[in-house]
Amino acid sequence: MDIIEIIEKKKRGLELNVDEIIYAVDEFTNGNIPDYQMSALLMAICLKGMSDRETSDLTFAMMESGETIDLSEIPGKKVDKHSSGGIGDKATLIVGPLVASLGVNVVKMSGRGLGVTGGTVDKLESIPGFCSDMSVDDIIEQLKDVGFVDAAQSPDLAPADKKIYALRDVTGTVDSIPLIASSIMSKKLASGADALVLDVKCGSGAFMNDIDHARKLAETMINIGNSRDVKTIAVISDMNEPLGKMVGNSLELVETVRYLKPGGWKYSDKGLDQVVITLASWMVILSGWFDGKDMMLSDMHAISVNMLRGALDSGAALDKFREFIKAQHGDDSFVDDIDNFVKADNVVDVYLDSSGFIASCSADKIGMASCILGAGRMKLDDSIDPNAGVEVMYNVGDYYEEGTPIARLYTANKDKISEAESLLKEAYTLSDSEVPIPAKIIDILK
Amino acid sequence: MDIIEIIEKKKRGLELNVDEIIYAVDEFTNGNIPDYQMSALLMAICLKGMSDRETSDLTFAMMESGETIDLSEIPGKKVDKHSSGGIGDKATLIVGPLVASLGVNVVKMSGRGLGVTGGTVDKLESIPGFCSDMSVDDIIEQLKDVGFVDAAQSPDLAPADKKIYALRDVTGTVDSIPLIASSIMSKKLASGADALVLDVKCGSGAFMNDIDHARKLAETMINIGNSRDVKTIAVISDMNEPLGKMVGNSLELVETVRYLKPGGWKYSDKGLDQVVITLASWMVILSGWFDGKDMMLSDMHAISVNMLRGALDSGAALDKFREFIKAQHGDDSFVDDIDNFVKADNVVDVYLDSSGFIASCSADKIGMASCILGAGRMKLDDSIDPNAGVEVMYNVGDYYEEGTPIARLYTANKDKISEAESLLKEAYTLSDSEVPIPAKIIDILK
Repeated sequence: MDIIEIIEKKKRGLELNVDEIIYAVDEFTNGNIPDYQMSALLMAICLKGMSDRETSDLTFAMMESGETIDLSEIPGKKVDKHSSGGIGDKATLIVGPLVASLGVNVVKMSGRGLGVTGGTVDKLESIPGFCSDMSVDDIIEQLKDVGFVDAAQSPDLAPADKKIYALRDVTGTVDSIPLIASSIMSKKLASGADALVLDVKCGSGAFMNDIDHARKLAETMINIGNSRDVKTIAVISDMNEPLGKMVGNSLELVETVRYLKPGGWKYSDKGLDQVVITLASWMVILSGWFDGKDMMLSDMHAISVNMLRGALDSGAALDKFREFIKAQHGDDSFVDDIDNFVKADNVVDVYLDSSGFIASCSADKIGMASCILGAGRMKLDDSIDPNAGVEVMYNVGDYYEEGTPIARLYTANKDKISEAESLLKEAYTLSDSEVPIPAKIIDILK
Repeated sequence: MDIIEIIEKKKRGLELNVDEIIYAVDEFTNGNIPDYQMSALLMAICLKGMSDRETSDLTFAMMESGETIDLSEIPGKKVDKHSSGGIGDKATLIVGPLVASLGVNVVKMSGRGLGVTGGTVDKLESIPGFCSDMSVDDIIEQLKDVGFVDAAQSPDLAPADKKIYALRDVTGTVDSIPLIASSIMSKKLASGADALVLDVKCGSGAFMNDIDHARKLAETMINIGNSRDVKTIAVISDMNEPLGKMVGNSLELVETVRYLKPGGWKYSDKGLDQVVITLASWMVILSGWFDGKDMMLSDMHAISVNMLRGALDSGAALDKFREFIKAQHGDDSFVDDIDNFVKADNVVDVYLDSSGFIASCSADKIGMASCILGAGRMKLDDSIDPNAGVEVMYNVGDYYEEGTPIARLYTANKDKISEAESLLKEAYTLSDSEVPIPAKIIDILK
């Protein structure tokens, strides 16, 4: 087989066969195909696309390039949840323990953050002692004992994806739906879950800015999952404004604990609650809870939501959260001491210059401000400040009264405050007339 | 400036500005932009194209990456001729001395052949002693003394093109009109001629298979030349069948000498004569021969052709050919001994199985047969057999009589004969009804 012929074929917009895809992935991973040929192929894929069949074959080739985790010794269906990445997205931290508190096994491999999007591993590692690096045996043990694991993705999982992603990052070939979908799904399929709930974010703070691209990405990933008998559904949720009120690492844990405390969800951000309950309810359904029962989907959801509210109000969800933190060697004392958990040296309120209905709150500007304050990395080897971030006080549709803080900045680095403040002020637009509250759940694809 | 942003911009189909193009070319040539980023950019250019302005800027950036030859000390306009490459194309060997014999300065940098297309340097080097590697000073001296130089292209000319071409060759990014045009023109502009006649080949044996692409390539190169005040015209000529009767290195010199001998053109291949006279006449006109004279173009051509026929019939053209061979240290004795010049160990006639009008004679199959017999290189470091090749006996439109040879094979390698013979037989299609003789000159663009 000849890589130049494969490149030429894709350049002409033709479909690659499975052998050609496996050859390209394997020989690139082995170092027999040099970077410069792979980057030409990746650019051709970006511009000419891939069929569903090609995208699935690419996913499986990358999945099979490394270790795959076998969870079959654990009874029942193991459910995974994946977010395409957004600002203030702490949904994993909440739905993992919440769903596990009902007895569903939830297994999750998370990443570290890069750019404005935070990473779940970074958020969890703001807890003293918390350990994300786990062996497969540890993962299986904890899944048996606790029912929930959130581990950093092993470097042995889908190494081809790791190598291809690193090349995409420096060759302008990141924004391609087949490449994004296969990258995500190769890791998900390798991590051994039987069912997968995808949260595809859509808006200014997400990778997918418009609904058509978000829907296409969701459909592509559902296709891949289902072609390997991993039951997959996708929730498309709004990411034009941040999810919830907190953006940062320990800040998002604060919001998580407040939500998980009995009755806490009632006082939490409504958009966050909508997203959490939708994702959690689908995870319960996909776990096989209602298998064999002749029920309408809407009834299944009604029952799920009732059970989830019960787990929240009884404290079972918060208990599962503590159990999970302890199992991964984290100090769980912050759960009782939550309002004193974040200790940023500088806490500064930001104000807008006039009153009005909030017409928009740009998630990417808030994400950038949080990143500048120290909560995120711009380069892979940047260190992060666990306590830095932004707390937003209002959502789109709220009336903002001049003189009250629109947001609060947390940082160890005083010098960054004025830049973050400017970004915050730019993030908002106000309107004289009422603004409808945008729906958080835009679509559900199954 | 950031190469990833430049790649992304081209990927989105936007126009790169001159600074971005110079940055990409210079930093790649210096080794600061790695191959894998350049190949992604090249693939984006292949698929998204370049405007005339971008293509010109790319050409100038590559031209300025190395030495440029200054011929201004030589009085009058210096004319160059370039062929996009074809099978049996010995036009340069004929028109160079022919036009120079009228007193026009003709300066030509030639390449070695790769694949089925022969290279003028290889053809000339089948003459014992002939030297193609010349310094700029030698080129200028010979141009003053003889009026015609055909030197191998110096590695110091457009080194950026050399590096980019090597990368294109292994990344499936060869067939892009802006990249082909800028590659050719960067070297042409660097070699210092004031006027340029392009012979853009079109057909099965050419890089451009169809007339639309050939015309687009021609227009693009004309634009580039004119934007640097190098008066450029393009002849689009047929390359569905080989040009003339001989394909090979010394074989093409035989046909050249036969043509150049007084009266020889009258008994030569008609298609070859048409191409030679068209190119040569344009070279005379572009040399400024008729500058300041209020004449119609058709009259200029009529006068040029008369002068050229005169130079052929008087022996002036053949004398100039000898002078040129001697100046570049070649043994010119073969000119008088031409029919004994080619000494292949094996000379084999090929026959077709039935009679009929020749409907097609595939130039690429003949080129491939010649290459297999030893006349060409498949890899850069292959050695070539100067006496190998193919002599075709008939052209499209001729009536072929069963039992007469359709072609003659020349080779040192007996083992390759049957493969070449099969290719020859496949190359022809016959028709029961008369076939019109195809026009050799398809179009002229100026």
